[in-house]
Amino acid sequence: MKPEIAKLGYLSLVTSDLEKSLWFFKEVIGLEETTEINGVHYLRAWGDFQHHTLSLEQGDRGYVRHIGFRTKAPEHVLEFKQLLEDGGIEVEQIKAWETPGIGEAIRFPLPSGHTFELYYDITRPEVEEHRRSVLKNQTYKSWAKGISPRRFDHVNIHSSNDSAEAYDFLENVLGFKMREFLRGDNGDVIAGWMSVTPLVHDVALVIKPDLPTPARLHHLSYWTDDSQDILRAADILREHNLEFVGPGKHGITQAMYLYVMDPGSGCRVELFSGGYLIFEPDWEPIEWLEAERPLGNTYWGDSIQDKELNKITIEA
Amino acid sequence: MKPEIAKLGYLSLVTSDLEKSLWFFKEVIGLEETTEINGVHYLRAWGDFQHHTLSLEQGDRGYVRHIGFRTKAPEHVLEFKQLLEDGGIEVEQIKAWETPGIGEAIRFPLPSGHTFELYYDITRPEVEEHRRSVLKNQTYKSWAKGISPRRFDHVNIHSSNDSAEAYDFLENVLGFKMREFLRGDNGDVIAGWMSVTPLVHDVALVIKPDLPTPARLHHLSYWTDDSQDILRAADILREHNLEFVGPGKHGITQAMYLYVMDPGSGCRVELFSGGYLIFEPDWEPIEWLEAERPLGNTYWGDSIQDKELNKITIEA
Amino acid sequence: MKPEIAKLGYLSLVTSDLEKSLWFFKEVIGLEETTEINGVHYLRAWGDFQHHTLSLEQGDRGYVRHIGFRTKAPEHVLEFKQLLEDGGIEVEQIKAWETPGIGEAIRFPLPSGHTFELYYDITRPEVEEHRRSVLKNQTYKSWAKGISPRRFDHVNIHSSNDSAEAYDFLENVLGFKMREFLRGDNGDVIAGWMSVTPLVHDVALVIKPDLPTPARLHHLSYWTDDSQDILRAADILREHNLEFVGPGKHGITQAMYLYVMDPGSGCRVELFSGGYLIFEPDWEPIEWLEAERPLGNTYWGDSIQDKELNKITIEA
Amino acid sequence: MKPEIAKLGYLSLVTSDLEKSLWFFKEVIGLEETTEINGVHYLRAWGDFQHHTLSLEQGDRGYVRHIGFRTKAPEHVLEFKQLLEDGGIEVEQIKAWETPGIGEAIRFPLPSGHTFELYYDITRPEVEEHRRSVLKNQTYKSWAKGISPRRFDHVNIHSSNDSAEAYDFLENVLGFKMREFLRGDNGDVIAGWMSVTPLVHDVALVIKPDLPTPARLHHLSYWTDDSQDILRAADILREHNLEFVGPGKHGITQAMYLYVMDPGSGCRVELFSGGYLIFEPDWEPIEWLEAERPLGNTYWGDSIQDKELNKITIEA
Repeated sequence: MKPEIAKLGYLSLVTSDLEKSLWFFKEVIGLEETTEINGVHYLRAWGDFQHHTLSLEQGDRGYVRHIGFRTKAPEHVLEFKQLLEDGGIEVEQIKAWETPGIGEAIRFPLPSGHTFELYYDITRPEVEEHRRSVLKNQTYKSWAKGISPRRFDHVNIHSSNDSAEAYDFLENVLGFKMREFLRGDNGDVIAGWMSVTPLVHDVALVIKPDLPTPARLHHLSYWTDDSQDILRAADILREHNLEFVGPGKHGITQAMYLYVMDPGSGCRVELFSGGYLIFEPDWEPIEWLEAERPLGNTYWGDSIQDKELNKITIEA
Repeated sequence: MKPEIAKLGYLSLVTSDLEKSLWFFKEVIGLEETTEINGVHYLRAWGDFQHHTLSLEQGDRGYVRHIGFRTKAPEHVLEFKQLLEDGGIEVEQIKAWETPGIGEAIRFPLPSGHTFELYYDITRPEVEEHRRSVLKNQTYKSWAKGISPRRFDHVNIHSSNDSAEAYDFLENVLGFKMREFLRGDNGDVIAGWMSVTPLVHDVALVIKPDLPTPARLHHLSYWTDDSQDILRAADILREHNLEFVGPGKHGITQAMYLYVMDPGSGCRVELFSGGYLIFEPDWEPIEWLEAERPLGNTYWGDSIQDKELNKITIEA
Repeated sequence: MKPEIAKLGYLSLVTSDLEKSLWFFKEVIGLEETTEINGVHYLRAWGDFQHHTLSLEQGDRGYVRHIGFRTKAPEHVLEFKQLLEDGGIEVEQIKAWETPGIGEAIRFPLPSGHTFELYYDITRPEVEEHRRSVLKNQTYKSWAKGISPRRFDHVNIHSSNDSAEAYDFLENVLGFKMREFLRGDNGDVIAGWMSVTPLVHDVALVIKPDLPTPARLHHLSYWTDDSQDILRAADILREHNLEFVGPGKHGITQAMYLYVMDPGSGCRVELFSGGYLIFEPDWEPIEWLEAERPLGNTYWGDSIQDKELNKITIEA
Repeated sequence: MKPEIAKLGYLSLVTSDLEKSLWFFKEVIGLEETTEINGVHYLRAWGDFQHHTLSLEQGDRGYVRHIGFRTKAPEHVLEFKQLLEDGGIEVEQIKAWETPGIGEAIRFPLPSGHTFELYYDITRPEVEEHRRSVLKNQTYKSWAKGISPRRFDHVNIHSSNDSAEAYDFLENVLGFKMREFLRGDNGDVIAGWMSVTPLVHDVALVIKPDLPTPARLHHLSYWTDDSQDILRAADILREHNLEFVGPGKHGITQAMYLYVMDPGSGCRVELFSGGYLIFEPDWEPIEWLEAERPLGNTYWGDSIQDKELNKITIEA
């Protein structure tokens, strides 16, 4: 039986302006800081159940170190290691708790060029009384500051590497199911929304022929309960003089969106709400053709199509 | 390896006033009718992907025939049959397509007294052009009439049978995971929110000492994307002179609610929105004590506690 | 003491395809039909308190007959007649109830080229039991069909006539107060949001140098209680394959917007929500310069700037 | 021609725990502080256009000093003085700017026992860059903290004095129009929603036979743009362990409500959204009978009827 991934866990982000990024993610987006250790800040949303879903640290430029996923069982971490090494992939092993909050882990490159991390053990630190929700099933009080999304939702990554190999690896090695995809005019899959959960995507991978480096991050995404929260987010961003794309509603995923850049790292954040869940075990991936891309991108609203702001990505 | 349930599928409801029930579910709740065969009406929400999530037929009184669940794989249906018969449970086998839209199935009684059905094969009938969504990933146009929820969400069943046995069966035979539960003053679990999906519950089972019959249905639930849809639902129900409880927000599940009775069958429907998803593979069930029941029931809003309207149930 | 206007009343619209316009306004927008007399259909929103706020009739092309306003007192109608005739304006007198629901009225051309009507007496017809709200202060049940806005809000008219004369007449003869305005690079006022009520505008007048005819209607507007109703409207329009601009939020007025064309008459409808009210008796009109027009038009969202769809107007 | 009131202006509140009241109004409700002078704190909402809409100062108990209204013209202040003195009412004259932000004013007792203030001149202090909205027509950035309502809306006052005299004074001396009212079983008006603006009420006056003192304040109210803001407010209050009544929707006014007490002064605040506007110059006051009071109070939701928390008032 193959090892399995349970969920997207966190993203490790390096920023060229830590102070600005902390202001953006804590005050504007409204994430809570779990802790700071050795200059690395560990953040999560009020409804996240892990130690952190985003880590932030100072570097010479903005880029993604790696993207972490939690496995379904403790033994799956090393089973994945074996599986990957059997496939000729070089795997780095990370000692337990070297990353605060994260147990023993492995890291490895994907054919798309991105680095994924897999781990199982996590810590769920206690929250101080004054920030703790009155509800037993909620981590922090909601609405404490900024946009205040509920939880980490997904990542959208770009690659200029071979399409078939990239999707094949995600599906057949890592176990992601294709939920919706875009077929280019040349017949290749050029964008895929894939998940191990009933979300339409935990990861979207987009193939682009010419990128500054082969592996890029287009955005990470946090989820809000209500579509009106996206409208409130637009007010907040506008009042902070932060440019954004949206609000609008995707055809693919059916979710409301709004995209804004962290002015520190250049990393884009999507505020995301609504959409559908897939519980059917025999889901037929929804195919969109190149000509249908505009509807797939934007069911209605401020279109992401042809927006310069939408084209920038960071190394990942 | 054990067979597994993928999701809640549908509820088979008998009503003493079919015309009134059809008006309620189609015009007020806003479900779409897939088809009518031999006097049985097959309904689903605009975002449901199955043939139906509710069937309605005339009878001498309102009651639930059975509650259907879809398995994760075709072979799981007969594997479950074997498993159940090995445990001494009498299993009824239903021929494929005897229930329109549903392939080969099995039905059996639970220790709680309820009848569950398991099946894998389903049909997804084409939708007529004028009702079909412009989106490839959505069944019907949304907002065509009434409250217009997105999809079937969960069932809440009551039983006066033995608590330990009832929960044990759901967990250990059917594979439901306990997500949140209420522990009575006598130490017994008296309410459990359980799921096979990342929803907090596909099924809630409440143990009550004195019920008219051992197995009852408290409500079935349809989901709306936004909490404001629940407020709009309240307007619609009030203008139809239909009594309801809510709107309010549960502590357990963190979801917005509104409860209204089908005037035909006496079956209660919960309109439901928001709440959280559970992706952690090692989720610790949240325990609520009897004294915390009011907060668990109602985080805020029109309380379900002590409402006469909230106590009525139908046979199931 | 000068006669005064109390409020915007209704718009008389001619359409080249009555059937299509009735479908659009009744089924898509969700207006209620008060009555049909001699081929003219009288419509209003569920929260409108008049006989009608829109009349629809067949013609050879789409255009606006006139825009009706209610005066503050019965005697103001003839006082306005005197005032206008004293100013050399030709005034047409309309017999009471010649327009169903509307008492004695006067009609006259504005310097902008538009025809306004003034009346005081109105009828408020009873609503049939099954459409009547359970509330004594509400005309119809809300949410019966389509987008279902609450009430008629404002009109936006365009003119290629002299700017100074046009605004002067609205302010000094008709008593509209300037609330916000756009000053063109040449120093002229080129757009003015004006009201006799605390709404930011009952009428917006935009001056454009080259129009097909001197007096045009850009849109009429209906108001929804909540900004999420605008998002729901977008879903409904998209599913009806009706093109629209928005949703977005204006800087001027601070209101959410969405613009869609009646496919029968070519008349644009703005769905409108939120914004602010002006209760200060000494309100200083807010001045926006040409360079600030983009922010004034669109605080955020799908911009109305440079949209071809936004440039079409009909004769008025 | 009679002097006229333009709008409700502000409420002067004394609290027995200034620190707690400041925390409540600034951090929880989310009002902005314009300034503090001699221990009096001047607050307003982000969309208020005056110097302040609430003043807070320390005292030995919580009570209302007076409620301020702005007149339509400068000369109306002294014209009202004359009118009142002609009617045998003792009028106190307040020097300009004795109350920061407020010009020359008069104060006088109503038959209901409440003290009203009338003034015309106000100051509109500049807002510091970092708190100022990017919009020219908005005072502060919205959503900076807490619930963040847009503007001061109305006051609800209680009196045990003579009903006929109390309403007569508000209508015939101060010019408030009755919009909706409740007729008691004895034939008296026992509650009236009255306004000088198109709002259904700037002031609601409720007659109660037995009150601790003849003149009381039931609540002051701030307005939010969207009904979902009321749901968000409920989350925020619940997480601050502040008890409240609601959310629900009134029949009278048709507005969403939520009532919460300032823990410092005991003054109740209503968060309020939606409802209708009255532009008709010949509005027929809506009459509700005692038997219809429950529907008038609560169209749906958490009922204010029979709630102990709803019965507390403070001296005014």
